[in-house]
Order: sequence, then structure tokens, then C-alpha cells
Amino acid sequence: MTSQRAAVIGLGSMGLGMAQSLIRGGFTVTGFDVATAAGERLAQSGGRVAASPAEAAHDAHSVIAAVVNAAQTEAVLFGPDGCAESMPEGAVFISSATMAPEMARSLCARLETGGRHFLDAPMSGGAARAADGSLTMMASGSEAAFACARPALDALCGTLYELGAEAGQGAAFKMVNQLLAGVHIAAACEAIAFAARQGLDLARVYEVITRSAGSSWMFENRIPHVLEGDYSPKSAIDIFTKDLGIVLDMAREAQFPVPIAGAALQMYLMTAAAGMGRDDDSSVARLYAQLAGLKLPAKEPA
Amino acid sequence: MTSQRAAVIGLGSMGLGMAQSLIRGGFTVTGFDVATAAGERLAQSGGRVAASPAEAAHDAHSVIAAVVNAAQTEAVLFGPDGCAESMPEGAVFISSATMAPEMARSLCARLETGGRHFLDAPMSGGAARAADGSLTMMASGSEAAFACARPALDALCGTLYELGAEAGQGAAFKMVNQLLAGVHIAAACEAIAFAARQGLDLARVYEVITRSAGSSWMFENRIPHVLEGDYSPKSAIDIFTKDLGIVLDMAREAQFPVPIAGAALQMYLMTAAAGMGRDDDSSVARLYAQLAGLKLPAKEPA
Repeated sequence: MTSQRAAVIGLGSMGLGMAQSLIRGGFTVTGFDVATAAGERLAQSGGRVAASPAEAAHDAHSVIAAVVNAAQTEAVLFGPDGCAESMPEGAVFISSATMAPEMARSLCARLETGGRHFLDAPMSGGAARAADGSLTMMASGSEAAFACARPALDALCGTLYELGAEAGQGAAFKMVNQLLAGVHIAAACEAIAFAARQGLDLARVYEVITRSAGSSWMFENRIPHVLEGDYSPKSAIDIFTKDLGIVLDMAREAQFPVPIAGAALQMYLMTAAAGMGRDDDSSVARLYAQLAGLKLPAKEPA
Repeated sequence: MTSQRAAVIGLGSMGLGMAQSLIRGGFTVTGFDVATAAGERLAQSGGRVAASPAEAAHDAHSVIAAVVNAAQTEAVLFGPDGCAESMPEGAVFISSATMAPEMARSLCARLETGGRHFLDAPMSGGAARAADGSLTMMASGSEAAFACARPALDALCGTLYELGAEAGQGAAFKMVNQLLAGVHIAAACEAIAFAARQGLDLARVYEVITRSAGSSWMFENRIPHVLEGDYSPKSAIDIFTKDLGIVLDMAREAQFPVPIAGAALQMYLMTAAAGMGRDDDSSVARLYAQLAGLKLPAKEPA
């Protein structure tokens, strides 16, 4: 247990769970979210609610940004009522959004000029693992940033990869993971719809493939959504239009071809264009089914 | 143990291992291969060597075709000195090559008119698993075909999926697996080369990804070849130009789009075009490295 103070900016399903894990770890937690209802859920869990990122962070040892992208992270730090200058000198900003390495390096450099630390710490694991303190983080940053963030990381993470002394390296590892994850979900959806087109028993396909060389973590995790016809978003299509978009931008910038990630991105964009951007990312299978006039399993009425 | 007789046509690394597993299971095994040296290895393992498929199969209960594709399987059955008419009536032909379901159905129909049985039984697992009798087979066929093949399947398989009463269903399941396997190898190679382009420590990438949501069976299995710089063929590029070619043909025939498998096939074709068709399928990573002027690990001199 600790007597430290943490601020959590962004109290969606991830941020709220992280705040709860920090409270359970003995932290005094102050949170902020643009949505008032999110703050109320934090208050019910024993946290304080602030009126701005600046106010939430003013006495924190660690400030965790649990927002969705680089633009929001930048706004939390440097926007109106941002926390970059209200954070105590020597405190650490833990940046958990998935973003391009270049962006993480830039935010780090700007924050460090003011004497605060920056930890580039994109995470993996859903809301359940945020809430029980077993997230995976792919982190990089200075020794001082790690030292200052350590108590919060202990409360938040089941697995912490320490991937280098400079911001940007955590982000780069995360983008390699997202390239693969994005391709694997789209490929899983292509394969299960192809199997349906071939007239195969899809539950049997799932059983055989998950025990064969064609399996992936994503096939195993996402195809049950298709088999149950349940496309309520555990993780949305829009996440991968964003993340594969970053991969493609990084690759173009580096003059490096990524044709398979490119093909996968087009499938997420088609699925979003067909109106399923906020649905579960396994909705790529529904897009294939729509195109080909296939019937996939439908959810049982409740 | 059994007193049955089996014929094995095709004595490459898979067929020889299968023959050895059958001998160990008590079978009297007669083999045939167009290469004389392959026959000698069978003789050393205690098998007999025949001068043609027809001769090898003439008194067999089970005839196993361990050749690489549909055309060779067709030649083994119906070509000059083929075994379709020399096999005893009531015997079973176990077809283990990966092929289009349509082709498996057609071969089955032709063989059944002569009173022999056909088991559509594509396999997965390499030479080691062939030799120790722990292959996985995705099989379909009539009850009579399964019944007659059972003793041989027991000697050959660790896992046997019984996927339907008609030839073609085993083949279709195998093609779904190959779609995924082919995409995952190419994506693994794209991702590891992208990671190299980003300047990341590749051994660390392997460690992080294999424990993350971006992992796949193929990433875990093939990327060590890249890390060791060892592209001696465990499974060759040419296998996937063939297998993804079948997937693309099946999909076009069914008017079904498979853009991700299509992108992967192009990468295998580029790798083959660059002279690496007979090298390990992880050579797709070398193709990316060549294109981008990257250095991947080189094999230590022996």
C-alpha cells in the first residue's frame, strides 16, 4: 500500500477501471472526464472528481491519461486547463493511448522542458483487466520516469515490459502489435465468412482452427462473437481504422511497404463506411456476409 | 497391432515418415516413389518397394497418397500404372494432399464407381509428426471409407477430425486453415521487418508479441527462423503460392472476395519471383528487407 496521489484523466471503461485499481492499491485518486456521469461513477468508487485536467493533476505523483488518441493526450497536457504546468515538478505523466512513436517523442520533449517526466506506456487488455489491475503495458522512458511511475504501474499492471530509455519505443512496440492484431481480426473474419460461403459448420471450423496452425489469439478471441451473432462492441471497428491508419502513416513516412496491413485497413474502412464503425471489430465478418449475401448466426432474442 | 497391408505412394519426408509409422503399427508396407533413393530409405526401414503405384497397391487394405497436389494425386490414381484399378475392391484410398474441395469430390466420384473407397484427408504437421504417428488429419468420406481406413489412421494420427460424410469437406476445412496460415506467416514477416525498420530489438519484439494479443501460431513458429537467419526450408514459399492460389481460385469461383489472402499471395509470389521459392516460407521477411534495404539477422557460420 502507498500514500501516493494519482490523477486519472479520462474515465471511460479503461480509465474508471484503472482508477479503481489505484484506489485498491492505496492511492488517493482524483479523476476528470468531460462527461459528468463518468465522474459520478468514480465518486461512487471512492475517488475525488476535479473540474479540469489541471485541477486533477495539481498535487499528483502520477498522472495517468486514459484517453483514446494522441490528439486527446495532447489536449490533456497542453490544451486549455491542461495539466502540463499544474503537475508538480518531478511528477510523471503516464501516457497510455496508442499513438505514433513520433508523437510520443514530441509530447515527452515538450513536457520534460518543464521538469516533469513522461512515460510512454501504451496498454493492452480490456476493461476487465483495467479494473483488476492486470493490464499489460509496453513502456519506455527515462529512469526517473520509471522510478516515479513505479507505484502506479504496480497497481495497474499484470505485465510491464520495459522497452527502452526513450519515449517512442513503447509506442513502436504497440504499433507492431496493432499491425498484427488488426490483420488477424480481419483475416479471421475473412476466413469464417469464406467457410460459411463453402457451406461449412462454423462451430466446427472454430474447433478445428483453434487447435491448428492457422490459429491466432484474435481468431480465438473474436470468432465467438460471430458464432453468437453478438456485435456489441468489446473493441470497436473505429479503433482499428485509427490504429492501422497510424501503422500505414508510419510505414509511408519510413518508405516501407505494408500491403497486408493496407488490405486489412481497407476492410475496416469498408465496415465503418457500411455503418458499423462503433460496433465490435468482428463486424468485418458481417461486411463480408453482406457483400456475398451470406447468413451468419444471429443473436438469440433476450 | 494389425496384420493389415498398406501402400504409401510418395516417399518424401512426409510419406517416408508415414510409412515408418505404419510399419511400427504392425502394417506390412509397400511403397513407391519416382525417386529410387526414396525407395531405398523405405527398404532400410523395413518396407517393400514397388515399381509403380499399381503394383504397390495391388493387395493393400489402405493406399495412402503422400504427394504434393491434386495433379499428382490424380496421376497416382488414374495415370499410367495408376492404382485405381489395381487396388482390391473395398480398399480405401487416403488422399492427404491439400487440394480444392471440387477436385477431392471429383477424384472420389471416379474412384467409387470402381467399388473402391476414397477418404478426403488433408493433413497438417511436419515430417517429425509424420514419423512419430501424430499427424492431424481433417477428414471426410463415407462411413465405409472411414471404417476401412481406421487402422491406418490410428497409426498415422494424433488428432483426427471427422468432418462429414462426403469428400470435399476435409479439403474445405484445410483450405480455411491454409488461408489463415498463409496470411499469418506473411503478416508475421511484414511485422518483424516493419519492427526492424523502426529500429526495434527483434528478439524483444518476439518476446513481447508472443505474449500479446497480436500473436499467432505462425508468428510463434516462424519468426525464430528470421531471428536465427535460417531460411533452410521447413516448409517452402512454393507451398503457399500453391495453397493460397487454391484459396483464391475457390473464392473467385464462388464469387467471394478475399482481399487479405490476395495481398498475402502477392507477397509469396514476389518472394518466389525474387528466387526464394524453395526457401523457408519465412523468407517473405527477407523480401521486405531486400526492398527496404534492411539488415535482418544472418545465420552464424557453422
